[in-house]
Amino acid sequence: MDGRVLVPWKQNKDNAPGALTVEVYDGRAEPPADLGDVVFYVMPYGRPNAARLLRRMPRLRAVQLLTAGYEHVVADLPAGTRLYNGRGLHDASTAEHALGLILAAQRDLPQWVDDQRGNVWNPHYTRSLADTRVLIVGYGSIGEAIEARLLPFETEVVRVARRARPASGVHGIGELRRLLPTADIVVAVTPHTPETEGLIGAAELALLRDDALVVNVGRGPVLDTAALLAERGRVRAALDVTDPEPLPAGHPLWNAPGVLVTPHVAGGSDAFYPRARRFIDEQLRRWVAGEPLANRVALDGA
Amino acid sequence: MDGRVLVPWKQNKDNAPGALTVEVYDGRAEPPADLGDVVFYVMPYGRPNAARLLRRMPRLRAVQLLTAGYEHVVADLPAGTRLYNGRGLHDASTAEHALGLILAAQRDLPQWVDDQRGNVWNPHYTRSLADTRVLIVGYGSIGEAIEARLLPFETEVVRVARRARPASGVHGIGELRRLLPTADIVVAVTPHTPETEGLIGAAELALLRDDALVVNVGRGPVLDTAALLAERGRVRAALDVTDPEPLPAGHPLWNAPGVLVTPHVAGGSDAFYPRARRFIDEQLRRWVAGEPLANRVALDGA
Repeated sequence: MDGRVLVPWKQNKDNAPGALTVEVYDGRAEPPADLGDVVFYVMPYGRPNAARLLRRMPRLRAVQLLTAGYEHVVADLPAGTRLYNGRGLHDASTAEHALGLILAAQRDLPQWVDDQRGNVWNPHYTRSLADTRVLIVGYGSIGEAIEARLLPFETEVVRVARRARPASGVHGIGELRRLLPTADIVVAVTPHTPETEGLIGAAELALLRDDALVVNVGRGPVLDTAALLAERGRVRAALDVTDPEPLPAGHPLWNAPGVLVTPHVAGGSDAFYPRARRFIDEQLRRWVAGEPLANRVALDGA
Repeated sequence: MDGRVLVPWKQNKDNAPGALTVEVYDGRAEPPADLGDVVFYVMPYGRPNAARLLRRMPRLRAVQLLTAGYEHVVADLPAGTRLYNGRGLHDASTAEHALGLILAAQRDLPQWVDDQRGNVWNPHYTRSLADTRVLIVGYGSIGEAIEARLLPFETEVVRVARRARPASGVHGIGELRRLLPTADIVVAVTPHTPETEGLIGAAELALLRDDALVVNVGRGPVLDTAALLAERGRVRAALDVTDPEPLPAGHPLWNAPGVLVTPHVAGGSDAFYPRARRFIDEQLRRWVAGEPLANRVALDGA
């Protein structure tokens, strides 16, 4: 194999493809001075500036991202370079946090934390997750991961995606308003697009049962903040993403009753790196073997 | 069927066995004046005084409890009466809360709650549940329910019970010390007996990895409080039961770093009553049909 591969971490000796010249660039240390022969670039995670190196890689043939989103690199991508994203790498972490939010909300965990801070032992009967009907809005790979974790809790899961897939039991988004009144819990896990902005707004929230729980682990603007605040006290929420984000001090969402907020941390846990390493090892193996890589992003004109 | 049945809630018409004379006693209202012909008594949940009625039921043949524990009724049980307990009815609720505690601890939920109270958006990378090895100490029906909920999180579960059951992959308690150094998370879910008191003490905690998590959803005295406090900062804990219980204000467990406390609420959620109702309906059906009832408690001399 001609040319260098830039990866963000040291390879295990067992996994390093022998035929490649691999160099580590983690996005924090200085990059190698000469990038002229880099053919494959695995961009470091959470280092947006790492995209700027692309302009110094004239022989680049493939860029591998560790995020699902790729909009931030398209402008800097040399002509003829193939782009691969990190779709799936954050599924386990995000699904896990979604379950954490749901259980915390159903079992009153914020109340127990407050009571612990006050040294107060004051038990009460709580809601449960068992026997609930959970609507997953945006049923893709993260939705599947959430569903797999929900089902052993003796729940019923209803799948909703942009397009109906009747053979897979997936409802189309056009059925959302019909389904909302039947849900105890609604989990939004869609990307932010013109179609999904405000997808859960005043009309949708009004259709929910009293005491229903809305969980957002997708993107903040999918849930209309003003509409949610108007329903505070009637509809509960557990939000890992918000609009605006970050949420400024004094914003009413922070202090709304029945609203739990975490600061966009669903994808960022120890679950990520082992999955990312396994995936990159496999991509490099495919690269050496001349096989098509996974997760190719279809770009206009590419 | 001769004689009355006392149940703690109204029966659904569909489920009420026609051959029985059923009366409701919920433990709060006055009991019926004459209990002389009661043959089957389903004791109200969470009303310890309800056991005192037993002495007024000379024709009693069966007592059905809604708790797994039965020590509180044995003294009042008329001779010749069979006792049935509520084993299994709290499994879903308890397992659910165990998962809530584990996820809260791994994903730093108490920190996010504190930050929310302070209106602070300050994300950080967290531990995960994925890729952990979880030891379930006291592998019975609740342990099975916890395991079923853990596995989709991409964890490895190790089963430990009083007696080894090699065919079911269950280790005996004698192997506990060998297994503890391999665990990221230890979930204790045993009853309180002379054998289990202090089962997780100083020697056991010392064998745990740095940053390991100990979860107790069984009984407080199974985990040695002083030993846990001696390891505070090195070993984390999430406790639904404590020793002493209730935990008094000012007790060091309340304020120990890395310790999350909930006030013995694992079994008390909306998951309980639907399961209890289904179970009692089935027990009454068996009673009418003359079939053996489930969950019989073997009493000395009975």
